[in-house]
Amino acid sequence: MRQRAAVDVAELVERARQSDPRAVARLITLVENDSPRLREVAERLLPYTGHAQVVGLTGSPGVGKSTSTAVLVTALRASDKRVGVLAVDPSSPFSGGALLGDRIRMQEHATDPGVFIRSMATRGHLGGLSAAAPQALRVLDAVGCDVILIETVGVGQSEVEIVQQADTTIVLLAPGMGDGIQAAKAGILEIADVFVINKADRDGADQVARDLRYMQSLGGAHSEPGAWRAPIVKTVASRAEGISDVVAAIERHRDWMDRTGQLQHRREQRAIAEIEAIAVEKVRRRIGEIHGIAGIAELAQQVVAAKLDPYAAADELLASITD
Amino acid sequence: MRQRAAVDVAELVERARQSDPRAVARLITLVENDSPRLREVAERLLPYTGHAQVVGLTGSPGVGKSTSTAVLVTALRASDKRVGVLAVDPSSPFSGGALLGDRIRMQEHATDPGVFIRSMATRGHLGGLSAAAPQALRVLDAVGCDVILIETVGVGQSEVEIVQQADTTIVLLAPGMGDGIQAAKAGILEIADVFVINKADRDGADQVARDLRYMQSLGGAHSEPGAWRAPIVKTVASRAEGISDVVAAIERHRDWMDRTGQLQHRREQRAIAEIEAIAVEKVRRRIGEIHGIAGIAELAQQVVAAKLDPYAAADELLASITD
Repeated sequence: MRQRAAVDVAELVERARQSDPRAVARLITLVENDSPRLREVAERLLPYTGHAQVVGLTGSPGVGKSTSTAVLVTALRASDKRVGVLAVDPSSPFSGGALLGDRIRMQEHATDPGVFIRSMATRGHLGGLSAAAPQALRVLDAVGCDVILIETVGVGQSEVEIVQQADTTIVLLAPGMGDGIQAAKAGILEIADVFVINKADRDGADQVARDLRYMQSLGGAHSEPGAWRAPIVKTVASRAEGISDVVAAIERHRDWMDRTGQLQHRREQRAIAEIEAIAVEKVRRRIGEIHGIAGIAELAQQVVAAKLDPYAAADELLASITD
Repeated sequence: MRQRAAVDVAELVERARQSDPRAVARLITLVENDSPRLREVAERLLPYTGHAQVVGLTGSPGVGKSTSTAVLVTALRASDKRVGVLAVDPSSPFSGGALLGDRIRMQEHATDPGVFIRSMATRGHLGGLSAAAPQALRVLDAVGCDVILIETVGVGQSEVEIVQQADTTIVLLAPGMGDGIQAAKAGILEIADVFVINKADRDGADQVARDLRYMQSLGGAHSEPGAWRAPIVKTVASRAEGISDVVAAIERHRDWMDRTGQLQHRREQRAIAEIEAIAVEKVRRRIGEIHGIAGIAELAQQVVAAKLDPYAAADELLASITD
């Protein structure tokens, strides 16, 4: 392995910009693995970023996120958009495409040169999704994707984190999911830019739509003129029905964000979170370097033994790096 | 409001130790709100901590987490255990009991002096659940709870975070939840100390159990002698069936942890995470104090405008506090 030539990041970026899928994959692997070249990758990609609209898809297991993602890709390709897909599995330690390989609908896109598909595991990643995703998104942005779809896979949907990464957030619902809306009520209104009621051929779809509209009418916050009110779109993703309406809603939301400065605002918020996450991660590493695993473990043992409170332990940890 | 007497933490701890529910609630509010007295609270509680077994319940929406929690409380009370319940809603900005107030089964316990119920919102909480929960758990531990149940509410189950807080993790499943096990496959085996198949009177419960056993047989990691193999318990929580088996499994897991040193190990890991979270949060605040919102926003604008990469921005942020 040592014989392997050092990565030429400049060349890799050049090839990725010319849509070489292996170069794209290689770049994402570099940023995912937090390679020593990460920083150089970030610098070289920077000039090409800022174009893509990042669209997050979230919703309970079983609402049809994967199918919806796959047919959305088809619809976006039909209007000649370049599309990136980042499938995030917060619970899996595996990365690099294993999960997506199982998904037949997504395989249709696997050989399309205008589609870049990537799965990403965040378990065990220090800082989780918020640390791992921005760089992968930046790669997909820099290679010319017009739209990047982020989808969560499996249990433990970190929808809040997804929202933090997205320009536009789609919340998927489906009728007959038990306490669907009820369970989701608390946070759902605020995070959705577009509601999609999938499996709309089933009984209860109209009721879900009515419930959503009622919730929106209670919301109030979105009632001032010029505010964005999340549209409610019905789909049957398995038959690709209603998908063009979803694409239209995504485009309208992009236009609205452009017009109102929301796009700039959201991206600044995202950059703030990213910068802070990187800074905090650096501090964490510095703590690790100075104290080592053993030093922190010793403090932890004193906390468990009720000899030291955790705030005093944190002070001891920090004293050495900030003095 | 300014006339209000300063909080006497010592007196509050004393009253809470004598099971005054208002004092317990007040203490949790203090630690939740990150009050200036937080540190004093932590110090004063410390000597009384280390007794409670923290049990996390997780699973997809609709598997019956709330009902299971409520009947578990009943069962634990029947064997004269003092019980704490921490219901965590990662998506709600509200806190303090609003959600639990809706839940009839839980109301049965609301007037029981041996039960302390608290809901906790983590949205908007810097550091999320991992920062907010340990102190609330410490309060419930210090007031003499034998068992503390942590339950996630609503969408966005942060099951990984729950596990980080728990001595024992229960993963709930139910038959007929669509792609239940399939979707959950990736992370579920590793995080469960006990599997509960709820709604076991429905078709498919045996199949779920078989699938789980098959997955366990593939796991391998738990096959060495003395290792813990997560038992699979069937329940019908709505009729309180099988709950004593869950209680027995929780107790067996505690015994096993005591015997093997796992309890100490898990608590040390938890303390490490907690100390790091506090340290990191302090750094974050120091950054905020020095740079202010405006300073960070300016760096973020440069990143969005593709003039500065986020790593360079993080360096600028850190330079001032660690030099």
